[in-house]
Amino acid sequence: MAEKNKLSIISMSGDFDKAIAVFTLASGAAAVNYEVNIFFTFWGLNSIKNVGGRSFIGKGVLARFFNFLLGGRKNLPLSRLNFGGLSPILMTGMMKGKNVATLDELFAASKALGVNFYACEMAMHVLGLTREDFIPEVKDVLGVASFLEMSQGGQTLFI
Amino acid sequence: MAEKNKLSIISMSGDFDKAIAVFTLASGAAAVNYEVNIFFTFWGLNSIKNVGGRSFIGKGVLARFFNFLLGGRKNLPLSRLNFGGLSPILMTGMMKGKNVATLDELFAASKALGVNFYACEMAMHVLGLTREDFIPEVKDVLGVASFLEMSQGGQTLFI
Amino acid sequence: MAEKNKLSIISMSGDFDKAIAVFTLASGAAAVNYEVNIFFTFWGLNSIKNVGGRSFIGKGVLARFFNFLLGGRKNLPLSRLNFGGLSPILMTGMMKGKNVATLDELFAASKALGVNFYACEMAMHVLGLTREDFIPEVKDVLGVASFLEMSQGGQTLFI
Repeated sequence: MAEKNKLSIISMSGDFDKAIAVFTLASGAAAVNYEVNIFFTFWGLNSIKNVGGRSFIGKGVLARFFNFLLGGRKNLPLSRLNFGGLSPILMTGMMKGKNVATLDELFAASKALGVNFYACEMAMHVLGLTREDFIPEVKDVLGVASFLEMSQGGQTLFI
Repeated sequence: MAEKNKLSIISMSGDFDKAIAVFTLASGAAAVNYEVNIFFTFWGLNSIKNVGGRSFIGKGVLARFFNFLLGGRKNLPLSRLNFGGLSPILMTGMMKGKNVATLDELFAASKALGVNFYACEMAMHVLGLTREDFIPEVKDVLGVASFLEMSQGGQTLFI
Repeated sequence: MAEKNKLSIISMSGDFDKAIAVFTLASGAAAVNYEVNIFFTFWGLNSIKNVGGRSFIGKGVLARFFNFLLGGRKNLPLSRLNFGGLSPILMTGMMKGKNVATLDELFAASKALGVNFYACEMAMHVLGLTREDFIPEVKDVLGVASFLEMSQGGQTLFI
């Protein structure tokens, strides 16, 4: 039996459009039967937080402050032309108008298609986040070396 | 016969310096006989638009507005220290002064060396763009899964 | 004897958090015995400058001006929520408070673990930098095609 194709993504960005890229690639690859692994680190962790919006989570004043400012899956900024959060809303409207999957739908599709989510141990530690701050679908908390070894033999992208 | 080395690039950024990176890598690899495939998506699509500068293309008011703001190959901003568009001009001047290929030249070299250009179906749909909005050298309009499969067995970069 | 795993990184960004990512991946992979190669280009070159802070190095007025603005390893900005340089300082404080390696420590670890540093010939030329502007650990000055060939058979990331 041939081995499965594999796609691994290191998701570090907290930008709306980069998150769209992560989950489009993940769900697209999973749909054609790839093994897909995503390693969320730093701003990327916002995508897998339990709370969709802004919130003061984390341990320590600074960590809570950073986490609040960074927001969650529901209020990621666009990497360009953000206009104070207006553009992601307009863009979501354009995607709906065109019957293209929105970020929420791409995220749901990735979960449904069995994409593996991993959270970065070090970044969680720095931001004062624990396993409980993330959605239950997060498979494991890993170090970067473990993730690199897991992604051997496939394509690996840093987004 | 040995298989050709392969480099695949997912080009999502609309920044001047990132575009320099895409076409330097593409033309550099093609020059040493790699098969090179570039998948242009979202802001990356600006690099392969027919019109070099800003223009109101696309279907729908929002799409036309976004496309105008994003501009084209001739007015990409620098990802840092842009100074309202002054820096890319200064940088192009520095590149010319040093006899280093400019973005236009790197782009022309990539075309001449047979780099394969692909446009992302979904992003075109969201931005209301059609095949006719792009340069004739664009080989095909693809989904992300098809591009991933095409890039199997080589190096794949997300820029 | 099995071949060594290999990780290659093209480091183009001058952001503090991206530099953290580069040196975390590099030192993490080197610690589990990977061959690690980093190709520093454009803003990424700041990480391997001799001088840690801002300085007017380079040949030509424009080059000196750019190099001053870009700064060095000691004053890289955060890609988001930079607050005029305050955030990288706070983040370094958080990392220290949590006993997580700081950028300086990750950089030192990468050097100690034998990570190979390469500088991009073209970017050095554009920015008017010479071999003497960089730390002695820089192994060689290369073109992009040479680096791609060196990274064949491993994982390659663009950061």
